Amino acid sequence: MATSTDSAVLPLPRVVIIGGGFAGLACAKSLGGAPVSVTLIDRRNHHVFQPLLYQVATAGLAPSQIARPIRAVLRRQANTRVVLAEVTRIDTTRRVVELVPEAGESSAAFEVPYDTLVVAAGVTHSYFGKDAWAPFAPGLKTLDDAIEIRRRFLLAFERAERLEESAAREAELTFVIVGGGPTGVELAGALIEIARRTIPDEYRTINTRTARVILIEAMDRVLSGGFPQSLSDRAKRDLLELGVDLRLGTRVTNVDAEGVTIEFMKDGVASTQRIDARNVIWAAGVRASPIAQSLGVSLERSGRVIVEPDLSISGHPEVFVAGDLAHVIDPKSKSPVPGMAPGAMQMGRYVGSIIKREASAGERRTRSPFRYVDKGVLATIGRARAVAFVGGVGFGGFFAWAFWAALHIVYLIGYRAKTLVLLDWIWSYFFFERGSRLITGPNAKPESAPRQSAQ
Amino acid sequence: MATSTDSAVLPLPRVVIIGGGFAGLACAKSLGGAPVSVTLIDRRNHHVFQPLLYQVATAGLAPSQIARPIRAVLRRQANTRVVLAEVTRIDTTRRVVELVPEAGESSAAFEVPYDTLVVAAGVTHSYFGKDAWAPFAPGLKTLDDAIEIRRRFLLAFERAERLEESAAREAELTFVIVGGGPTGVELAGALIEIARRTIPDEYRTINTRTARVILIEAMDRVLSGGFPQSLSDRAKRDLLELGVDLRLGTRVTNVDAEGVTIEFMKDGVASTQRIDARNVIWAAGVRASPIAQSLGVSLERSGRVIVEPDLSISGHPEVFVAGDLAHVIDPKSKSPVPGMAPGAMQMGRYVGSIIKREASAGERRTRSPFRYVDKGVLATIGRARAVAFVGGVGFGGFFAWAFWAALHIVYLIGYRAKTLVLLDWIWSYFFFERGSRLITGPNAKPESAPRQSAQ
Repeated sequence: MATSTDSAVLPLPRVVIIGGGFAGLACAKSLGGAPVSVTLIDRRNHHVFQPLLYQVATAGLAPSQIARPIRAVLRRQANTRVVLAEVTRIDTTRRVVELVPEAGESSAAFEVPYDTLVVAAGVTHSYFGKDAWAPFAPGLKTLDDAIEIRRRFLLAFERAERLEESAAREAELTFVIVGGGPTGVELAGALIEIARRTIPDEYRTINTRTARVILIEAMDRVLSGGFPQSLSDRAKRDLLELGVDLRLGTRVTNVDAEGVTIEFMKDGVASTQRIDARNVIWAAGVRASPIAQSLGVSLERSGRVIVEPDLSISGHPEVFVAGDLAHVIDPKSKSPVPGMAPGAMQMGRYVGSIIKREASAGERRTRSPFRYVDKGVLATIGRARAVAFVGGVGFGGFFAWAFWAALHIVYLIGYRAKTLVLLDWIWSYFFFERGSRLITGPNAKPESAPRQSAQ
Repeated sequence: MATSTDSAVLPLPRVVIIGGGFAGLACAKSLGGAPVSVTLIDRRNHHVFQPLLYQVATAGLAPSQIARPIRAVLRRQANTRVVLAEVTRIDTTRRVVELVPEAGESSAAFEVPYDTLVVAAGVTHSYFGKDAWAPFAPGLKTLDDAIEIRRRFLLAFERAERLEESAAREAELTFVIVGGGPTGVELAGALIEIARRTIPDEYRTINTRTARVILIEAMDRVLSGGFPQSLSDRAKRDLLELGVDLRLGTRVTNVDAEGVTIEFMKDGVASTQRIDARNVIWAAGVRASPIAQSLGVSLERSGRVIVEPDLSISGHPEVFVAGDLAHVIDPKSKSPVPGMAPGAMQMGRYVGSIIKREASAGERRTRSPFRYVDKGVLATIGRARAVAFVGGVGFGGFFAWAFWAALHIVYLIGYRAKTLVLLDWIWSYFFFERGSRLITGPNAKPESAPRQSAQ
């Protein structure tokens, strides 16, 4: 392995990165050319551009347009190795990462030793302890999640077209989205537009315009994280104009194969309501990767790791946590760094710069604390509207949407993806088409579709 | 439902088409505006452009680039309804098609009555009675098949990168393709190029250039169907130049989890050889859809329906069979019409024109027999070579490849797909990139990958 230093005769310090999301990949990239040997471990072969995952789930983009093999991204970085594997445990005493073994692999290969470890394993969706809801309300964190949600909502229209009984048909055409953050808002806007604009011409028995999209949020406004009240109000107005049935101040108390039960205050009294819905999407809570538990340090309520100001863990300056998995209080705003792409990339680069500096120096140095630079927040609402809050300035409408689109094209990895996504968006904008309306997967056939677990 | 005739007060003749492949879709399209009510039934929601399926299997194109929802294709055709369902049986006496019921559907909805039936259910791959081989040697007929083959070949490189034992590593890097027709030749050319040109830079432990691609063909030449000997020879030379290990005159006698056993003549003596290979792709025989059996007429050896000169079945002028499912002897060449896209489209249009004419006349007419127009045959070999035999003229090399590429762009459905595929091909041609190298699906994680059935 070629390095740019004279110390290549000594074994290089081994840096192991767990996770190829925004934080892990940014960290790996910042170590290109550094006098270290990097191993990036991920259980998927691809990096996903998460902010556009909802577009795969709603058939606007193909999976390959927002994902790229991690190997391809890092192929020119000679000091970096990529391993496709699932991590089971971290042993901070012996300084090894344990992997699920391959069939026929010797036990020596199960463990990857490290000198410096970066844990960027991210978060998954959480059902607030109600894991029994999972089969009926898939979340959206991976490409497979997105393909599963796409399959379900496309099959819903297909089944409704065949069914004769009107109650059953209505339940198929009722889409419930739980959680009014950016993902929930974006899913709701896309689904209502598909039902009202994209597909009505294609069905003969049902009127897809009658489909209901219900967005449920426990707080009294959407986009409560990071957006000012005025933009939440604007998003609410936009959603209502599109035809979304918005239920603020409403909690979900049950999810099963037939629908959801919700609870809300009405005239000062707690009321419950049953909604028959065969399609529920979970966009509410998140829970940290369970791998965090093996670090043996304090975790925050949702399982995130409480880190030191330099993102290392208490007592282990050689172990860093970056990205969504890290619970970091921003010294400036005194609030946690939001679990979004910009923060994750900043943490990854910050950790990479510490590792690079100390590897070059050959010794531990004083570390200045991580500082979060707030790049603002964005959320799209349907085809050509968005809300943005950037540098303390809030704006909405078409201009915010154009800004959103440009920014996402710029941050997509690879010129090929940039070109193809841009073309697809221009096309969709003019023709209201959605290019990836495919029902694939093991349950692609209609008879086996109803109510199967995605797990 | 609006029609363009004055007879709309009478119930329109009901035309039911089974299958949305090339034949079924061509038939449905030719009935647009005809005084009939059309129902097209398919168990998938999408039409697949089968000639490019091997490019999805080898990660060159995304599934959505070669497939389009059948509804979207037929959405402007007001007399046509699309039903996503699996057909279990055809009752030619009662003139109904039986469907697998939806959960909660009344039994009346299981049956679709017809006045005229077009059976275009196609073929699937056949293991010559050795169905036990199926889990170890997936075939390539559907998008799901292609995604499964893609998953397997990408995982093979990932596993090899992790394995330490060299025999196990070699078995992972040995790809066996059974069948030297166009699909087998195209898969072999694409896989060897990926191993030698696309991905070598991305791996640190293995040299992907050492991967073996073995193409096994029982006949003494590749592309024996439709191509003259000289083009088979040219294809052979091209394959050898690319580095494919070509085994002509060789039969597969066993396939299991560890590899294949082959049998061939050596110095006049039958010899057998065992090849350790963890990745086998089946591109050999085909078998007709089992639905043909319920028609109660004579079937050819592979289960295809022996039809009358007008593509109807004996004793039932109201039941047609079109596409790969039909066994038709071309009166000109005296040989069966090959099971490829041009023949299927011609049959679909021919049947459509008969139905249209007789519906307009209100009575059965004398039918002139189906005549196959041979448009030629084409097969690509790697990135920029092909062989073509068109109008009695054979040619190869770059020119044949450019001809192949242009023709496929023209025949792809929809301007969006045409544009995106063209761009992708230009990109791949210059950068040797492949845009869709994603491992997705229920077994996307490495630990669950080995040796699972795709069924």
